[in-house]
Amino acid sequence: MIVLNGGSSSGKSGIVRCLQAILPDPWAAFGVDSFVEALPAGLRGAEEGITFGADGAVRVGAGFRRLEAAWREGIAAMARAGARIVVDDVFLGGPASQERWRRALTGLDVLWVGVRCDGEVAAGREIARGDRTGGMAATQARLVHEGVTYDLEVDTTRAESLECARVIAARVG
Amino acid sequence: MIVLNGGSSSGKSGIVRCLQAILPDPWAAFGVDSFVEALPAGLRGAEEGITFGADGAVRVGAGFRRLEAAWREGIAAMARAGARIVVDDVFLGGPASQERWRRALTGLDVLWVGVRCDGEVAAGREIARGDRTGGMAATQARLVHEGVTYDLEVDTTRAESLECARVIAARVG
Amino acid sequence: MIVLNGGSSSGKSGIVRCLQAILPDPWAAFGVDSFVEALPAGLRGAEEGITFGADGAVRVGAGFRRLEAAWREGIAAMARAGARIVVDDVFLGGPASQERWRRALTGLDVLWVGVRCDGEVAAGREIARGDRTGGMAATQARLVHEGVTYDLEVDTTRAESLECARVIAARVG
Amino acid sequence: MIVLNGGSSSGKSGIVRCLQAILPDPWAAFGVDSFVEALPAGLRGAEEGITFGADGAVRVGAGFRRLEAAWREGIAAMARAGARIVVDDVFLGGPASQERWRRALTGLDVLWVGVRCDGEVAAGREIARGDRTGGMAATQARLVHEGVTYDLEVDTTRAESLECARVIAARVG
Repeated sequence: MIVLNGGSSSGKSGIVRCLQAILPDPWAAFGVDSFVEALPAGLRGAEEGITFGADGAVRVGAGFRRLEAAWREGIAAMARAGARIVVDDVFLGGPASQERWRRALTGLDVLWVGVRCDGEVAAGREIARGDRTGGMAATQARLVHEGVTYDLEVDTTRAESLECARVIAARVG
Repeated sequence: MIVLNGGSSSGKSGIVRCLQAILPDPWAAFGVDSFVEALPAGLRGAEEGITFGADGAVRVGAGFRRLEAAWREGIAAMARAGARIVVDDVFLGGPASQERWRRALTGLDVLWVGVRCDGEVAAGREIARGDRTGGMAATQARLVHEGVTYDLEVDTTRAESLECARVIAARVG
Repeated sequence: MIVLNGGSSSGKSGIVRCLQAILPDPWAAFGVDSFVEALPAGLRGAEEGITFGADGAVRVGAGFRRLEAAWREGIAAMARAGARIVVDDVFLGGPASQERWRRALTGLDVLWVGVRCDGEVAAGREIARGDRTGGMAATQARLVHEGVTYDLEVDTTRAESLECARVIAARVG
Repeated sequence: MIVLNGGSSSGKSGIVRCLQAILPDPWAAFGVDSFVEALPAGLRGAEEGITFGADGAVRVGAGFRRLEAAWREGIAAMARAGARIVVDDVFLGGPASQERWRRALTGLDVLWVGVRCDGEVAAGREIARGDRTGGMAATQARLVHEGVTYDLEVDTTRAESLECARVIAARVG
């Protein structure tokens, strides 16, 4: 099991696709974005769910948290059932977020990977993508890593997704 | 927990979104399409994974099945952890597919829903969508229901997604 | 040249894809949605560009109008250069919108098609799609047809996209 | 009018979005990808239309070329009608492709921009995107630039989209 943590537009999804391409066994990829898509439309933009502030701040409410906790249990169960899973998440709560994953993944072999990207560079990539709320990349670039511990860190500021994926793959059994 | 089964272009996703909109509690939606997206690109179009024949026939291999089994365990674990989940699937194996879900969902309260659609109408909708392999709708329309048992069946041939969702919602606690 | 006019979620895109599938010659499809995607992100949600009110009301500003006028000239030029073109639009300005197209398309052979859908049904389909601002379907259902004249009208309330496309195709040389 | 030419996965779309964000006036963006989406599904994968070989080779047929020629006339007409337009294309025919654009854009002020990217790096980004036929990036990296002349060239191998956009924007009136 691999858990990638990084801010918005830090390049997590690209690394995940490269990992899936280069790892010899098939790995399934589940990211927080796919979880958000699984939510009722009514929870997007609602206080109870998830809101995106004009300044790029992301807030989640109790309804979101309850489903998210169950989702983590589900991901853990997939891994326990034998699937190789790579998760990408944005630890908005820093070490508290990591602790929630750690508890859910108890007994599983996890490689914790930090995906860093300079805030200014990530903000530029956010503009280039054009599909994200402006400001998230800059806001999250450092925040999501504070107090989090990793087995491995990669930095996409200057390294390509595929290079980062190779570094991670070298640490996978 | 709600499990919808129906052929390609029978209208499952539309019903799921309407269910999420009208049910009073938040329900998370996971469909077989989101599972396929979680797979490595290399499994799509590969014998080991999932292949789409020119005639609309879908074949899945051993690699696909192993990850799919783990995915079902994960969905079950999310429900056991307290999440309200609606799943939509295409029972390519008919009763064998249902049996696999039944085993994974042991102990959970499940509403089994068949989503029917006349094959010719579904084939027309497949053309209107423009994003699916031609022939799947016609091939699957009856096949996926053979030998499967339901608590409830809806038919989108003449009923709108929202109407079908209302019929289903009335049966949910 | 075919111009389809209808409210949001009335089923224009589905009809267009079916038309492209059944017409013997290749027709290129350009819709107002593709034009909106061509705009700078900064014009979406801006008074100068296009805004979507919480109630489903759509407002466009001067910057939008200027580029839209040029876009219509471009579409007309494609048709004059020999391409078979089907356009789908939402005549927010009713007859004024039609007049703008009429002027741009001077000298071209145009089939004007109204795509009607009962407002309540369209609102249900808007929920089923899940990707549109709520309220647009209901707001636009009648509004966009007021004062507009057609060669042909189809109604998707009860007819499938493919059936509507067949009726239209029968009128195309 | 700005015309960007570069191979698949060279980063054209990201540069276009950044240009739209930083240029003071609103620019509309039309790319060859949006043109391909406007085609009937039946032309994708057909000899008459556009085919993607297993090795990344792209072939276009007579039906494609006819509509493409009309599309270029349309883009030119939009620019003549006063719209600021940025086009991104893949000059599969090298100088012949450029000559076709040049003729269509007669009388217009055009900034020709080459978007280069090292073939190996572009191939890695193609994997990271996950939505493109493998091999296109490597095949096209040099090919599309052979014999083409530019006012300006940018190289995304080491420069970010936003940096490249700034260099281009500095040359726009």
